[in-house]
Amino acid sequence: MKKKNKKINAAILIIGNEILSGRTQDKNIAFISNWLNLKCGITVNEVRIIPDIEKTIVENILNLSKKFNYVFTTGGIGPTHDDITAQSIARAFKVKHEYHNEAYKILEKYYGKKKFNEGRKKMAKMPRGAKLIYNPSSAAPGFIKKNVLSLPGVPSILNSMIENCRRYLIKGLTIHSQTLNLYTVESNISEKLGQIQKKYKKDIEIGSYPFFRLGKIGVAIVSRSNSKSKLKKVNIELTKLAKTKEIKILKI
Amino acid sequence: MKKKNKKINAAILIIGNEILSGRTQDKNIAFISNWLNLKCGITVNEVRIIPDIEKTIVENILNLSKKFNYVFTTGGIGPTHDDITAQSIARAFKVKHEYHNEAYKILEKYYGKKKFNEGRKKMAKMPRGAKLIYNPSSAAPGFIKKNVLSLPGVPSILNSMIENCRRYLIKGLTIHSQTLNLYTVESNISEKLGQIQKKYKKDIEIGSYPFFRLGKIGVAIVSRSNSKSKLKKVNIELTKLAKTKEIKILKI
Repeated sequence: MKKKNKKINAAILIIGNEILSGRTQDKNIAFISNWLNLKCGITVNEVRIIPDIEKTIVENILNLSKKFNYVFTTGGIGPTHDDITAQSIARAFKVKHEYHNEAYKILEKYYGKKKFNEGRKKMAKMPRGAKLIYNPSSAAPGFIKKNVLSLPGVPSILNSMIENCRRYLIKGLTIHSQTLNLYTVESNISEKLGQIQKKYKKDIEIGSYPFFRLGKIGVAIVSRSNSKSKLKKVNIELTKLAKTKEIKILKI
Repeated sequence: MKKKNKKINAAILIIGNEILSGRTQDKNIAFISNWLNLKCGITVNEVRIIPDIEKTIVENILNLSKKFNYVFTTGGIGPTHDDITAQSIARAFKVKHEYHNEAYKILEKYYGKKKFNEGRKKMAKMPRGAKLIYNPSSAAPGFIKKNVLSLPGVPSILNSMIENCRRYLIKGLTIHSQTLNLYTVESNISEKLGQIQKKYKKDIEIGSYPFFRLGKIGVAIVSRSNSKSKLKKVNIELTKLAKTKEIKILKI
């Protein structure tokens, strides 16, 4: 991982009819986003979920790879007809979709020459110039082409590969986060909270999220910033707000 | 709900830093998509998750509302400073963001005149010309403006409101789905499966999804179509494929 002095952002592109149709509950968005946030200081600024249609994938790859420092794709790199992520990225960047030598060797070794059939060979095809993201679970590598990193859709496999993305990423400023859980309703604090957000709008992003816990209603106030000292100041103001309004703070 | 004779599609726009940051696991996408599919014959063709930034919301509302029959937004209609969905939709469609008379009355009655403070009043502000989506859980209504339906982000509240969207939607062709769970790996069937998909590409969408169950590996073959008879034909071919390859079918 390289230098660490500015804001770096990313988009996530989930490719798969099964997520769009509601058949499968996505678990990759929160996982990737948390990892990027906590481990790499990279903020996810947009997520899109799109179907397995080449034209749609090409358009979204071109659009997102221009708008953000990195794009993470999930899904569509397996052996079946609906796995068209690699060929679509090749098309987007106008390069050949061809066997990647190292990926071919890895897969041939993993399956053995006899069992290395057409479907499995398909997983060694990548956009020309791609570099591998190794897969310790099931051998078939992901890849990075330009600023687009392609990972599989199966969460357990993706999770096992994520650390192998790190070498390709520039680390951004660390993003600190603090949460204050208040036993109140949003409308009781919204005015004052808005004022605090306004005061710190340059450095801090404050979010307000209702929760229900053990039959009680509450609001989680989440503050995020690159500055720990500014976060502390906000925390003092929020605690004061709670005290003034006689709101109980939930310690967890 | 009105006529029922063509393909109708939708996009979902999740508005909220808490989903983007990975802090909160989204549950609304699968819920809305399943409901639209099964109850309304409407296919979700794209999902986007974006931050609480007015300019970004405006751009996405304009883009998605042109591309799709309906856009469902979730999040950002509460009482706090980061709830800016209504004002952003008003901005996108160049109409005033103002008190909606009926919404104002509903909320005033729910909270009582004394407790109807500024934060709560904010929830009665909507784009001019919006129609209400009633909320049986916590009173604060969602709304529809043009082809954009805005719902809250809290899943339990959203779920309780979804049936109240139905009156505003045109029903599309029913989408049928069938799943065949095979105890095999994708690469064992990928070639033949690709041929079957090719044969029925006009009418059927076939997806292939690895699963792990009770320590065994399998592949779920999901076929989706507006035609029940075509689905039956595909099922016969898939069952034949399993028989030829001596693959066990998992009955569930």
